[in-house]
Amino acid sequence: MPSFASFLHSEIKSINAEIQRVIRELPPHLRDIAAYTALAGGKRIRPAMTLASARLFGYQGQDLYGLSIIPELIHVATLLHDDVLDNAKMRRGSPAAHIVYGVAPAILAGDALLALANHMAASYGDPRIMQCVSEAVIMTAEGEAHEMKRQHCVLSDNREYVDIVAGKTGWLLRCACRLGALHAGACERHVDALSEFGLNLGIAFQIIDDALDFADENKTGKPTAGDVQEGKFTPPLMMYVENMQHSDAEAFLSKFKEGSFTQKELKEIAGEIRNKGFDEATRMLSGEFLVKASNCLKGLPSGFERDLFFDALEYVRERKK
Amino acid sequence: MPSFASFLHSEIKSINAEIQRVIRELPPHLRDIAAYTALAGGKRIRPAMTLASARLFGYQGQDLYGLSIIPELIHVATLLHDDVLDNAKMRRGSPAAHIVYGVAPAILAGDALLALANHMAASYGDPRIMQCVSEAVIMTAEGEAHEMKRQHCVLSDNREYVDIVAGKTGWLLRCACRLGALHAGACERHVDALSEFGLNLGIAFQIIDDALDFADENKTGKPTAGDVQEGKFTPPLMMYVENMQHSDAEAFLSKFKEGSFTQKELKEIAGEIRNKGFDEATRMLSGEFLVKASNCLKGLPSGFERDLFFDALEYVRERKK
Repeated sequence: MPSFASFLHSEIKSINAEIQRVIRELPPHLRDIAAYTALAGGKRIRPAMTLASARLFGYQGQDLYGLSIIPELIHVATLLHDDVLDNAKMRRGSPAAHIVYGVAPAILAGDALLALANHMAASYGDPRIMQCVSEAVIMTAEGEAHEMKRQHCVLSDNREYVDIVAGKTGWLLRCACRLGALHAGACERHVDALSEFGLNLGIAFQIIDDALDFADENKTGKPTAGDVQEGKFTPPLMMYVENMQHSDAEAFLSKFKEGSFTQKELKEIAGEIRNKGFDEATRMLSGEFLVKASNCLKGLPSGFERDLFFDALEYVRERKK
Repeated sequence: MPSFASFLHSEIKSINAEIQRVIRELPPHLRDIAAYTALAGGKRIRPAMTLASARLFGYQGQDLYGLSIIPELIHVATLLHDDVLDNAKMRRGSPAAHIVYGVAPAILAGDALLALANHMAASYGDPRIMQCVSEAVIMTAEGEAHEMKRQHCVLSDNREYVDIVAGKTGWLLRCACRLGALHAGACERHVDALSEFGLNLGIAFQIIDDALDFADENKTGKPTAGDVQEGKFTPPLMMYVENMQHSDAEAFLSKFKEGSFTQKELKEIAGEIRNKGFDEATRMLSGEFLVKASNCLKGLPSGFERDLFFDALEYVRERKK
């Protein structure tokens, strides 16, 4: 069984080199801030998905690295914009780009990266590739706008939550998988199956991310329960509130609506969520989407890349940070 | 001689209907704010340019309205983002979108409009159209980033100023003209001439805009000398400072660097700039680019549309608000 982690490890250098190359071509006032955010780390799961998707259908052209970084550039653009709109101070252990370069350059560099992604997509001369990319940007923005609208609100069930995560994370992973299959000339049925795989993998990925928000910050390197303060009503929190006494829940929700928890309270909430196993239960919720993703793979050509996709499911399931 | 103003008047209804149609297709959480900004007025000069450019070469297809609104959607996206980064409260006499809907939705709706523009561009199946659009977005963002970097700084000559306005306004008008010519199947020489026409017309348009910033606000409907407070060192201001006593200039520039003028001072500055004729002199600077634009038209097919372009030069030159 091939290991998805090893695959990421073996490809990351070429992927990063390609990102560096295209960012160097941006005009001077956008280049540094774009490089600062795009080259500050990142697992590069999206580019790896595009590479594997194309190779699954026998495509080995050298233009694949360029194609693979298109969804990653969009991802970086959303990071730039998200940190402005969340007023996030840090990103991957360093000050966020808008802190270092200013809010205006961060917004403009995000715009330029979106345009660069489209520019590269256009260079493949295939309208289906273009449509796939622009559709993913629209749906990602919609997911985020939806989430923003429901910030500090209580969601009554998981359905709306899943809609949001499908938008904000699923569509871009869907795009990554779809691009590879399209460019390799896969048949429509295969292209759609791999797209559906990417969408569900992305949903599962985000659900795990939302479970990890309550993990010990010494293990993840990210502040615990940041989502609670930001007013995101994710599944671990849904279970936490459902299991509260009525009066406790009222007090909790009034603070949730204000986003007025102290750091100590956030640590206590996270601790209780872990003790009661709500983070693990959330991981199980992600299992539903990993199964759907797995089913999508069944009709695809067998071989190294399909095995890689199966292992990617485990990679996402077991992710600890 | 056809009148460009009448042409705008005769086409604006169809252009606005097309904008309304495509915005209706945006997902629900982005639709209202996008419509709020896109349908709040606007002269629609860019769409008119695309229509005339294509018809100049005999193209009459119904898909022209869709093509014509692509640069306009990009323009609306930049308005959404600019008002956030300038913290502008008003836009065309109404509260800015980020004031009504919030900063985050404004940024996300801008992203979605950029994606929508690319989505529409892709639907024409012509990589040159795609390249033209993405290039224009990158260069527009570059112009704005350049301007931001030099905010509250003194520019030593007009060269850097022209670079900035070419980016922030010229490239999108260039795109509008180029799209029409490309889609109509014009030869490369004609496509390039019309692109160059659009670029120079855009530069002239912005220079006039910067002169109008010092006009009487009862005539323009926009606050007087807003650019001074925002730290934009435009040609009228360059002349104003060059004609000051050394000690006065020092006091002025220290306030300019801080952006700390009172409303009364701004009105006085604008009044003096008008009295000394620096706003008119700035209009004359724009003449240089109108001549360049006019020269670009000479080798193009004669007829109604070319006459329209000649009249567009006068329209821009005489613009009073």
